Amino acid sequence: MGETKKAVVLSSGGLDSTTVMAMVKDQGYDLYSLSFDYGQRHIYELEAAKKVAKAFGAKDHLVIKIDLRKIGGSALTDDIPVPKTGRISENEIPATYVPARNTIFLSFALSWAEVLCCPDIFIGVNALDYSGYPDCRPEYIHAYETMANLGVKAAVEGKIRFRIQTPLIHMTKARIITTGLSLGVDYSLTHSCYDPVPKGLACGKCDSCTLRIKGFAEAKVPDPTPYAKP
Amino acid sequence: MGETKKAVVLSSGGLDSTTVMAMVKDQGYDLYSLSFDYGQRHIYELEAAKKVAKAFGAKDHLVIKIDLRKIGGSALTDDIPVPKTGRISENEIPATYVPARNTIFLSFALSWAEVLCCPDIFIGVNALDYSGYPDCRPEYIHAYETMANLGVKAAVEGKIRFRIQTPLIHMTKARIITTGLSLGVDYSLTHSCYDPVPKGLACGKCDSCTLRIKGFAEAKVPDPTPYAKP
Repeated sequence: MGETKKAVVLSSGGLDSTTVMAMVKDQGYDLYSLSFDYGQRHIYELEAAKKVAKAFGAKDHLVIKIDLRKIGGSALTDDIPVPKTGRISENEIPATYVPARNTIFLSFALSWAEVLCCPDIFIGVNALDYSGYPDCRPEYIHAYETMANLGVKAAVEGKIRFRIQTPLIHMTKARIITTGLSLGVDYSLTHSCYDPVPKGLACGKCDSCTLRIKGFAEAKVPDPTPYAKP
Repeated sequence: MGETKKAVVLSSGGLDSTTVMAMVKDQGYDLYSLSFDYGQRHIYELEAAKKVAKAFGAKDHLVIKIDLRKIGGSALTDDIPVPKTGRISENEIPATYVPARNTIFLSFALSWAEVLCCPDIFIGVNALDYSGYPDCRPEYIHAYETMANLGVKAAVEGKIRFRIQTPLIHMTKARIITTGLSLGVDYSLTHSCYDPVPKGLACGKCDSCTLRIKGFAEAKVPDPTPYAKP
């Protein structure tokens, strides 16, 4: 395995994945940041991901361009309006769900992890706040890990055992924020909004903004996000 | 589920996936052909896949562009020379292995299948001829299917159950060819070579050509492949 501890970290430039980056860095890993340009309307994510990778001294930051718009099916990549409910439903699967998105993202992470000989892949999924996304649940993550270790050359040869690590999976948004702050995360670098207004200001109304605002409120710390005026 | 039977079929334009297409068509499915432009050196594959989709009257043919060259690690996408052993080793994993390739391809297929409400995904993997590729084995395919049904909205909601179908998995190349011929496949449309010479002629020497030549010889039928002269 060599002396260095390497980690591939999926980074959206958002609050959750940036917190994961801080936690992984704190554990002494060399960071390999992986982002996707998937025709999402909020390209501000990618700018944020780049800043975050730089801020944490990532060894490499890879942006993979894939055109999920060809496949369709989500308000994040299609012309379906982003819902502005102002609240998150407990059971409903949101219209912003992208078909098999985490499955696709983890597959590229796995490919890169194999090339890097890196057993640890970190993803900032959360089973509480995003209860509506099936690919944020522990049973899905475990099944992914099993599949990964059966499908990759180095794992089948016994040279590596891949672990899909999900340090946020059972954390509240407030706890994610306080954890990140304790590790020195500058959340003004991050971008969560699904539907930013011009100049990249957060809308303050979409599900992602709603969760973020609620999280800062519950953590009782100031929210550094630049929101658009109502 | 509706009345029509839909199938997403992974198509490389090669002998195996084209045979799968014929088998799926023969079972009365509407075909949704999916190919990848992944920086492979043999772009003739994509031309072949297009011809094949047209020949079988596919309802749609999607080409997803992804840049696996950024990730690296294979003779098919890097500058590593394609091996010309002239024979296939039984146990060794070939240098033409692309890290997590089938995992990535199946993930896009799954995403499209969800949007299409299509439970059946067909992939022309073969555990005999490609024994060196871990992601061509039944245990990997089963693990993928389990993961897929845990990670996709429609499956978790019980509206669909995805099946990763691998009709060639235990077939010899000769049997694949005779099956295809019995269904009217024109193998001159297909392209298998890993290292085509100019004008798209097959090299006749790489592992893929070697398997193909051997398959036609064992099937005792003429090989319509245009090979380069030695």
